[in-house]
Amino acid sequence: MSREGSLDVIFNPTSVAIAGVASGGIGQAFLDCLLDSGFKGNIYPLNPKGGEIRGLTVYPSLRDVPRPVDYVISCIPARSAIQLIKDSAAAGAKAIAFFTAGFSEMGSEEGRVLEGEMVHVARALGVRIIGPNCLGVYRPELGLSFASDFPGEGGRVAFICQSGGNAIYLIRSAARRGIRFSKAVSYGNACDIDESELLEYLAEDAETEVVAAYIEGVKDGRRFHSALRKVSAAKPVIILKAGGTDAGARAAASHTGTLAGSDDIWTRALEQAGAIRVHDLEEVVDMLIAFCYLPRFEGRRVGVCGAGGGHNVLTTDQFGAAGFVLPPLPQYVQDEIRQAIRKVLKSEAGFMLDNPVDVTNMPTSEGLYDILKKLATYDGIDLLVGQFSVNNSGWPYQSSGYSSWPEAFTGAAARVRSETNKPLAMVIHAVISSWDLDKALGLERQCSEAGLPMFRSAARAAKAIDRFLRYHKNHPVSASR
Amino acid sequence: MSREGSLDVIFNPTSVAIAGVASGGIGQAFLDCLLDSGFKGNIYPLNPKGGEIRGLTVYPSLRDVPRPVDYVISCIPARSAIQLIKDSAAAGAKAIAFFTAGFSEMGSEEGRVLEGEMVHVARALGVRIIGPNCLGVYRPELGLSFASDFPGEGGRVAFICQSGGNAIYLIRSAARRGIRFSKAVSYGNACDIDESELLEYLAEDAETEVVAAYIEGVKDGRRFHSALRKVSAAKPVIILKAGGTDAGARAAASHTGTLAGSDDIWTRALEQAGAIRVHDLEEVVDMLIAFCYLPRFEGRRVGVCGAGGGHNVLTTDQFGAAGFVLPPLPQYVQDEIRQAIRKVLKSEAGFMLDNPVDVTNMPTSEGLYDILKKLATYDGIDLLVGQFSVNNSGWPYQSSGYSSWPEAFTGAAARVRSETNKPLAMVIHAVISSWDLDKALGLERQCSEAGLPMFRSAARAAKAIDRFLRYHKNHPVSASR
Repeated sequence: MSREGSLDVIFNPTSVAIAGVASGGIGQAFLDCLLDSGFKGNIYPLNPKGGEIRGLTVYPSLRDVPRPVDYVISCIPARSAIQLIKDSAAAGAKAIAFFTAGFSEMGSEEGRVLEGEMVHVARALGVRIIGPNCLGVYRPELGLSFASDFPGEGGRVAFICQSGGNAIYLIRSAARRGIRFSKAVSYGNACDIDESELLEYLAEDAETEVVAAYIEGVKDGRRFHSALRKVSAAKPVIILKAGGTDAGARAAASHTGTLAGSDDIWTRALEQAGAIRVHDLEEVVDMLIAFCYLPRFEGRRVGVCGAGGGHNVLTTDQFGAAGFVLPPLPQYVQDEIRQAIRKVLKSEAGFMLDNPVDVTNMPTSEGLYDILKKLATYDGIDLLVGQFSVNNSGWPYQSSGYSSWPEAFTGAAARVRSETNKPLAMVIHAVISSWDLDKALGLERQCSEAGLPMFRSAARAAKAIDRFLRYHKNHPVSASR
Repeated sequence: MSREGSLDVIFNPTSVAIAGVASGGIGQAFLDCLLDSGFKGNIYPLNPKGGEIRGLTVYPSLRDVPRPVDYVISCIPARSAIQLIKDSAAAGAKAIAFFTAGFSEMGSEEGRVLEGEMVHVARALGVRIIGPNCLGVYRPELGLSFASDFPGEGGRVAFICQSGGNAIYLIRSAARRGIRFSKAVSYGNACDIDESELLEYLAEDAETEVVAAYIEGVKDGRRFHSALRKVSAAKPVIILKAGGTDAGARAAASHTGTLAGSDDIWTRALEQAGAIRVHDLEEVVDMLIAFCYLPRFEGRRVGVCGAGGGHNVLTTDQFGAAGFVLPPLPQYVQDEIRQAIRKVLKSEAGFMLDNPVDVTNMPTSEGLYDILKKLATYDGIDLLVGQFSVNNSGWPYQSSGYSSWPEAFTGAAARVRSETNKPLAMVIHAVISSWDLDKALGLERQCSEAGLPMFRSAARAAKAIDRFLRYHKNHPVSASR
């Protein structure tokens, strides 16, 4: 049964009903999200008791709603699901997102049967189901959201996620680091709309340039593989496959009623399809950062420049371990760097002039700019990596000597980025306190606005950029970016 | 030339002189550190111009200081180093820590020669050198420190570090997570006192129970190997060896004038000696957390219990990937958990009752305690892992429903820990904002006071605990812990 193209209905609702809205409950949480996110359509809270909530009329049931409803969010018990599908069809709704749990993930025959029946009824009536046991759709452009703090503006990343909690975490975490989404779906048990259909849709979705997915398991391996090939041919696809161990598979079964499948088969399938496999949620974010902020480039010769002798050594190690080459700098480049230092300081003592270049002791933004510019314009390196700490970990001075250095450095890097074609990535170390983290987040925002990817450790940067390069090597004719 | 035992002089000074104290400079930074850390001895700032600083007389030179000086911190230029050694010997000083750089790390013949001469003069006069190009000694018990925010109370971890910046970062980071130090040394170029002598000393140091080291390279491989065997036989030793790649080795040479050596040889040597090798500073902290808070135990059967279905699945995967087994729970244990849930809630819908056990929906501290206690007393698991997020990533509720859950959970875990012999480790996920981080740090403090190790991700927890178990397996008769 081909259903392609029909997913427009879940991404473009003009009116939403929420079944099971009671004060302080999960139904109200969904209502609050829509109101706080400025949903651009009609909202109809439902509760048999009627009444009013946040200034909106509460209707006893869908049959009482005066106008057509496109999309329904279900927060009612599982036993009422079938009736809700019938009522939704009668009200003209095209799709229902079931937050409601208590189906196949329970591991009981009863749960499985009920879920099967639900799909049967929904297909007969032409209603699509998201979930059950999920949070549904985030579509910033419409103000459709399942967490009030998600960004209101859209972007070019799509995320599909079998876990609701992981969907919230990933979107929040990526959003803080500047990533914006075209759409995201928490799809839970995937009884009707599943990962394969979502991937097929996203392959052709013009507003989506990068796709990420958290998947616990699939039911139709062949269709999934074909969908993965299709989307991966069109744009980068990042896959976090969970439930890869025996115990993980058991956990996935009781979480979303999913058959996780053999990890070896998954590894082969993802490789064959050209998808990028990652192993935790942080790595998903890192890959989004790489694809959203790095220009496509070739070559593995890296120049490292930054603060802290020890951090420079460790950064060099991490890039070396990930398969990058850090070539020594020719004498003329070292001489140019020396001249840049001498414009500001009496001596280059305390600097490291070869690759890595240690600039901890350069006090001026102009001096940092000069050195980064020399490195960026040297054609013996393919990528320039700037690394530093937010706090003054390179100094015994208590926040005095170093406090404005990070801003000077990232400002200089942003300037160099805007003036050259050299790919540039930033690494921030040593985030210990909440003060450090606030500073890091601020710098990250500045950097992302300047088109500079920023990573939270050298190891994570090296791993993400390695995967980025391998993806592009395997997709020489990719249309994306 | 055997020098064993002589390191007492660097760890127990009763009077310290700082050469090169000028207002706002690095000399004053060291002075501030001593004053702010409450150094329990006399402090003599030195500057040819004399005067007064922070209420202390500034003496023109060591020769003018009225009483004997044990320990000197040098912040004067490299060219005056030899004279300072002579003056120090005349004043009765036993050791000098040279912050002063400009020696072998410069890569110049001149720097190497000067460093050699310095060692020659010092040995002839019986003065020990720390560094040069280092921050010296942290000894909380005496108030001897090189950063004002280091903890004032001592502990049982010793850290030796060839990089000053990394020493500051590691101590700060570990301190925030509850670790306390017996002593730490930033030892830079290691021209006299080196890693081998420090390790030999720490092997026999009664107040040190765990040793960690950041090493860029060693000069005498045989002595190092023997020192490492000695200390590793007595207590756990965690080694972060930097400069492992070609470029890293070049970086190490220009950072601390060190020969990094072949990475393969290092791998073999560390393995033979029974040391624990890690690859970044975060892993050093994780190992300290494991050794300071986990009781010695055997067995790899892990029970996972926590919040968020997706996080439970991923935690299970990470422990599985690190070589742990997550056995299914027998029916009677699942029934006991079900009963514990039914004491509080009408149904166990939304829970996962097998291993992992998902308790996101358990609202009471007592209920969480009951479930954790059942798991801790079940003898089919060797280690219980509790995992959760600080923020409400498992819920669309905006911080309301979940806000006190983490405290309830860690409180219940601490109670279980105090009542049972079961090893227990906590994993905290999804630290995104500075609010999250402050909350995580607070919970981490609570947990460490209760003897519960807390890790910042499931992958890091699994890796650290795997290394912890392998260390103990290789050291069946270790006297430590």
